[in-house]
Amino acid sequence: MLIVPEKEIGGLMTPDAAFDAIQAVFAAMDAGQAYNFPVVREAIGHQDALYGFKGGFDAAGLTLGLKAGGYWPNNATRNLINHQSTVFLFDADTGRVAAAVGGNLLTALRTAAASAVSIKYLAPKGAKVLGMIGAGHQSAFQMRAAARVQRFEKVIGWNPHPEMLTRLADTAAELGLPFEAVELDQLGTEADVIISITSAFSPLLLDGHVKGDTHIAAMGTDTKGKQELDPALVARAKLYTDEIAQSVSIGEFQHAIAAGLIEQDQITRLGAVINGADPGRDGAGLTIFDGTGVGLQDLAVAARVVKIAQEKGIALEVEV
Amino acid sequence: MLIVPEKEIGGLMTPDAAFDAIQAVFAAMDAGQAYNFPVVREAIGHQDALYGFKGGFDAAGLTLGLKAGGYWPNNATRNLINHQSTVFLFDADTGRVAAAVGGNLLTALRTAAASAVSIKYLAPKGAKVLGMIGAGHQSAFQMRAAARVQRFEKVIGWNPHPEMLTRLADTAAELGLPFEAVELDQLGTEADVIISITSAFSPLLLDGHVKGDTHIAAMGTDTKGKQELDPALVARAKLYTDEIAQSVSIGEFQHAIAAGLIEQDQITRLGAVINGADPGRDGAGLTIFDGTGVGLQDLAVAARVVKIAQEKGIALEVEV
Repeated sequence: MLIVPEKEIGGLMTPDAAFDAIQAVFAAMDAGQAYNFPVVREAIGHQDALYGFKGGFDAAGLTLGLKAGGYWPNNATRNLINHQSTVFLFDADTGRVAAAVGGNLLTALRTAAASAVSIKYLAPKGAKVLGMIGAGHQSAFQMRAAARVQRFEKVIGWNPHPEMLTRLADTAAELGLPFEAVELDQLGTEADVIISITSAFSPLLLDGHVKGDTHIAAMGTDTKGKQELDPALVARAKLYTDEIAQSVSIGEFQHAIAAGLIEQDQITRLGAVINGADPGRDGAGLTIFDGTGVGLQDLAVAARVVKIAQEKGIALEVEV
Repeated sequence: MLIVPEKEIGGLMTPDAAFDAIQAVFAAMDAGQAYNFPVVREAIGHQDALYGFKGGFDAAGLTLGLKAGGYWPNNATRNLINHQSTVFLFDADTGRVAAAVGGNLLTALRTAAASAVSIKYLAPKGAKVLGMIGAGHQSAFQMRAAARVQRFEKVIGWNPHPEMLTRLADTAAELGLPFEAVELDQLGTEADVIISITSAFSPLLLDGHVKGDTHIAAMGTDTKGKQELDPALVARAKLYTDEIAQSVSIGEFQHAIAAGLIEQDQITRLGAVINGADPGRDGAGLTIFDGTGVGLQDLAVAARVVKIAQEKGIALEVEV
């Protein structure tokens, strides 16, 4: 078994490698070559923790395994981050464990790469203004990944707690982009691409906020009850997601489905655009990508980082 | 993360330690302190493999994690065993991965320990004859574990392929016990304790075969469709299992349930006997333990072997 520890991931995994891995696995999912297993997610009744497994198999990349871990809300008191995960890869030909990879930074990178892939394929031509909703830890990753696929000229942002907007300003500065804090109506009017990455449980961005040709990557909703977008906004958009079953159950589209505003068959896998089976934007004014996060994404970036670690001679080999 | 490789397990894990671990986790399951997560089991469409995860959490032992792996039928051509698994333990207080443990021998030991625990609590007083149905790889483990909890004077055995009975004869000899190959009617008449451990898909042991006070540990059925016992035999027994939901869906009791011969509420967790909440045999002529195999068993023996490996200074520590 090869070990790639958490502390090495930052020096090994490039945003480009993450982008390529996510683009490839979305394509494989749409082509029927890769699928996710049922997700196990358990409130274990200890330390208020949520723990579980997200597994899958990609026959195109021969990537098999799972991400295991979860959310330990009391970790902060121990100087540990609350989200803890590890990815385990298995040899698809023999079933033997092949690698254990620290999954914390990889999760951030794969989530950022997913919205970046959606922007590459769905952003309006010549998009110049990036609107960020949310300024938490993950927002910086999303912004950096987005800036690699589209030449933005400006970032505007909003956060429920305005004092956190310094993270967006700092990240924009790091990318050489001006930043402006705005209200949501201005954000919806001016932004060509919007990334929402919050833990909201009620709509932030309303139908009336969004004007003109826009692509929205809704990345925050990954649980029943969470919500970032007005269902009426969803109802008038061309809809994409990573995995349809997940988008209508725990993703952003759960609400428009529940309200009867959209049907499941109006939702297209982003991989279909990558594969050329779906034309993408194609004159639509508004596109939305519901990034729910699937195990195959974790496996894809983990497999990539293992390969890089092997090439650089950094992966530790241990016998299990 | 501590690593306990497969090759070390044999030298570390004693049958007594496996017995104690399984007895404790069955007790915890019945006391509501330990539970199994939904099982993920997937035919991945590659190498005819079955792959999946069995996880759980034992709040009594603070054991959290999963066994991952499966069945690769073409492994024999690679000089590898077909069942390949690895157990991963997590720190229940922080969610960080704590150990990776080779799971192949542990699976054999925990399955053997389960039937031994059932024999300790349910065998007729003074049981002298052990009947073995099945002579595959696992049968030797079952016999050895059984002989540790009950002073048998003789082993009798049957197998669909009689040429394999040498395994039972050899194992009995190793235990200092005489062995006799018999037909199933003689086995059912003479044996006080019967262990069935086959991959049968239709009943082997019939109602008419079994006479007198008997305990049967039915260990082979772990999938929809598999079957070792006549449902009429099940219907007249006092019924025990490791996990009720699993016994009626993929365990031996699925068939008597489907035939309407028994109700789910007639089945008792073996842990209830261990905890003293159920009287066990209590004058019943026939008891059956349906050993379906749960993830918590894997975690229990893995946690035990990690502890032993640490005490002996054998566990390798690597950073993930």
